[in-house]
Amino acid sequence: MEMTLSDIFLSEVLGTATLILLGVGVVANTLLPKTKGHGTGWLLINWGWGFGVFAGVLVAYKSGAHLNPAVTVGIAASGAENYVDGIPVNVSSTMIYFAGQLVGAMIGALLAWATYKKHYDEDCDPSLKLGTFATAPEIRNPLWNTITEIIGTFVLVFVILSIGPAGEMAGLQKVDLGWLGALGVGLLVVSIGISLGGPTGYAINPARDLGPRIVHQLLPIPGKRDSDWGYSWVPIVGPMIGGTIAGLVGPIVF
Amino acid sequence: MEMTLSDIFLSEVLGTATLILLGVGVVANTLLPKTKGHGTGWLLINWGWGFGVFAGVLVAYKSGAHLNPAVTVGIAASGAENYVDGIPVNVSSTMIYFAGQLVGAMIGALLAWATYKKHYDEDCDPSLKLGTFATAPEIRNPLWNTITEIIGTFVLVFVILSIGPAGEMAGLQKVDLGWLGALGVGLLVVSIGISLGGPTGYAINPARDLGPRIVHQLLPIPGKRDSDWGYSWVPIVGPMIGGTIAGLVGPIVF
Amino acid sequence: MEMTLSDIFLSEVLGTATLILLGVGVVANTLLPKTKGHGTGWLLINWGWGFGVFAGVLVAYKSGAHLNPAVTVGIAASGAENYVDGIPVNVSSTMIYFAGQLVGAMIGALLAWATYKKHYDEDCDPSLKLGTFATAPEIRNPLWNTITEIIGTFVLVFVILSIGPAGEMAGLQKVDLGWLGALGVGLLVVSIGISLGGPTGYAINPARDLGPRIVHQLLPIPGKRDSDWGYSWVPIVGPMIGGTIAGLVGPIVF
Amino acid sequence: MEMTLSDIFLSEVLGTATLILLGVGVVANTLLPKTKGHGTGWLLINWGWGFGVFAGVLVAYKSGAHLNPAVTVGIAASGAENYVDGIPVNVSSTMIYFAGQLVGAMIGALLAWATYKKHYDEDCDPSLKLGTFATAPEIRNPLWNTITEIIGTFVLVFVILSIGPAGEMAGLQKVDLGWLGALGVGLLVVSIGISLGGPTGYAINPARDLGPRIVHQLLPIPGKRDSDWGYSWVPIVGPMIGGTIAGLVGPIVF
Repeated sequence: MEMTLSDIFLSEVLGTATLILLGVGVVANTLLPKTKGHGTGWLLINWGWGFGVFAGVLVAYKSGAHLNPAVTVGIAASGAENYVDGIPVNVSSTMIYFAGQLVGAMIGALLAWATYKKHYDEDCDPSLKLGTFATAPEIRNPLWNTITEIIGTFVLVFVILSIGPAGEMAGLQKVDLGWLGALGVGLLVVSIGISLGGPTGYAINPARDLGPRIVHQLLPIPGKRDSDWGYSWVPIVGPMIGGTIAGLVGPIVF
Repeated sequence: MEMTLSDIFLSEVLGTATLILLGVGVVANTLLPKTKGHGTGWLLINWGWGFGVFAGVLVAYKSGAHLNPAVTVGIAASGAENYVDGIPVNVSSTMIYFAGQLVGAMIGALLAWATYKKHYDEDCDPSLKLGTFATAPEIRNPLWNTITEIIGTFVLVFVILSIGPAGEMAGLQKVDLGWLGALGVGLLVVSIGISLGGPTGYAINPARDLGPRIVHQLLPIPGKRDSDWGYSWVPIVGPMIGGTIAGLVGPIVF
Repeated sequence: MEMTLSDIFLSEVLGTATLILLGVGVVANTLLPKTKGHGTGWLLINWGWGFGVFAGVLVAYKSGAHLNPAVTVGIAASGAENYVDGIPVNVSSTMIYFAGQLVGAMIGALLAWATYKKHYDEDCDPSLKLGTFATAPEIRNPLWNTITEIIGTFVLVFVILSIGPAGEMAGLQKVDLGWLGALGVGLLVVSIGISLGGPTGYAINPARDLGPRIVHQLLPIPGKRDSDWGYSWVPIVGPMIGGTIAGLVGPIVF
Repeated sequence: MEMTLSDIFLSEVLGTATLILLGVGVVANTLLPKTKGHGTGWLLINWGWGFGVFAGVLVAYKSGAHLNPAVTVGIAASGAENYVDGIPVNVSSTMIYFAGQLVGAMIGALLAWATYKKHYDEDCDPSLKLGTFATAPEIRNPLWNTITEIIGTFVLVFVILSIGPAGEMAGLQKVDLGWLGALGVGLLVVSIGISLGGPTGYAINPARDLGPRIVHQLLPIPGKRDSDWGYSWVPIVGPMIGGTIAGLVGPIVF
């Protein structure tokens, strides 16, 4: 079925909003005071983001469910001719993907804030409130933080790019697998978070970090701190480099 | 295969009873004294409810496995003509779904109480005993608690509604996937619980809350408190609004 | 492909041994001193048993992977004519299933003991050593412990019996799903353990409890206690009743 | 599609590097100071290695995704004629598999170190730093440690060998299952780790242990200890024996 750019934009908005609502939500549930999940910790956060990707990918099937500028740029770098049927890879379609992802991420963060409104109103360390929206490194070092984000995003895009060729090589019939494809990406994100998220909190997605950070800046949250804009370029630059490298390497080896 | 209203009623009773037995059971295992899972916490509870949905959906295949009035109302709002083959969407069929869900939820709660009978007989905070049956907010605020339930239920119904159209668009052959479809809904419920359940304990299903609350009222549990009827409308109204919105929005965007 | 009774016996031995090796192993990893998983607790135990079922079911595909007398008796009670192709349901074939399951359970427990040999040799509470082999209730009450085991086993067999009819009703083509079927049963066991295992430690399988209990009796484990034979009938009688009821009810409602 | 030995080598390098990056990464996240996952513990580690296998297997589809000399030797011992289309089982092809696995493991460990560079630079117990690279037993006993590794690896290879025959026996059509096959192996590794990893930390793969141990020896990590070469033969010999036994037994029983 042929898609239009409006379909793409709406699909990426809906999918990324779903992802970020569930992702920001799980961090809020762990970090904010008086929640039922308070203090549950790292494993909960990883399942939350992974299943958020799972749900977001299901919703965004019309646009191929990138939900992430680093995925979009990786697919472009891989030399694909079309993102989906009817949408050639070019500067304007790429910008539409990016715009949908950023707008969706902001809507998702807003909905997560509404879900946890009374908990955001409670007193707590302002860095925890920011931490529900945006990533921050445990040891601040721009170079190594960027390298961490490059490696994590490379794994994400590289593994995604291997799925299509594997099925084609085996010559098997494609069938409707329902939830399964989305579950695969979701579990891959759990994996990257669990294993590579320790230093920086694994943005591995510029929209995931920038969108909620803007929302944190704009929302009237009691007792909030500044939005740490000094770090904000790392979760943009790192993932874009990682996704691009994966897109260039993928077609050579798969 | 054509279904009758009796098939629907029985199917929803069986599926919802399975769901609530496993769901109330996991909370009992965490909250009641002297259980093997005592104090395991939030992540256990989320897996328990999610896998309870997984099992309940498998059992209720004849009725399409709503198990939840908010799902039924969402499907009705989406403009579907039939719930399943032979069952048109109308007031009486909808009432049969609701009745089966409520009766099933009560049976499930009764079975969970029987499973944990000797632990319910132990001394403990009466609110913990109630907490195994019905949801309660961490910060009591009817407006924001309702909003939380609206958002959580919207995600549930919205994502479910995306599955069918995605498969149709891709034009792939449907095959028997066994456990897979049910697993998808179960993991979606894990996701919503983990991420959006922090403020209210995620009813996202009026039958899930009302059925066990009635059973708590009726059962002769030693040292029990009142059944907190003052809050009981929130987990009914919130999910019904959220499911309806998702049902209205779904067909526009999918 | 037609099976013989020797195929059945060997298949059930191999599958049940795999299940019990992994199941007794995970409890040993949590309870015994100086292990890497020491004290990880209830959620680990549940994943361990569930994935043990997953692995055991894969191995025992020739016999239909019962691995559990309560499943065998449930299938017999459901009125099935054959267990698998070439093996009619009758007293001798049923006894062969039971024998394979018990022998397999004993071999699995022996291998788990070998895996953790140096940890079994360490000093610790003798009830913990027994607890790695056999189940024990938290509140000892034969009637209610039996009821708990009946309910848990009913859910296991009832949900398993729903899978076949669901696929047939939908009229979809069966395809080779590889690991998926086994994963479904494994996750169902995780669910039952998480939600209904709190009072008795969920035997839900007579062979799972009796086989390792015999091995505990026989093995020269330093500082071991008696094998608690006074409780041993509960995890036999409860599951057999639960499985039988599920087998009788299943064909009426599915 | 016919493969060449270069395809095999590259595929095993890429897959094993992915596996070890994610596996060493998850241990670093748990053990090293100041990480977001610090102290999360055993369950996190098991999910991390299991999902690492999942990702690595996806990437290495061209070579059949052994990623493990014990799997390669198990397949050879099973009497298979070809590893994949165009690659007969013989000494040189086996050596190519081994070489790819070892090189990949070293690259993966190097990337994990880069991901956690600033955390490796922090002060901590030198055995923890080594523990992120190589396995070590909790109770050092060469004989029983080797037995533990033999049993764990036997389960891995034995269950893998059961998948093909099961599908063939059922006579079902093979279809493109996307992520599913890789997920199955990943969850099997979670299972083995959870249940049998308590005594030795479950190498169950000579390349997984030797490659990172060499990298630990070579890297200029501040305050590192010796690389414990005295134990290094156990996670080579044990897995090779376990894989071989599984390869010999598999074709007899499946």
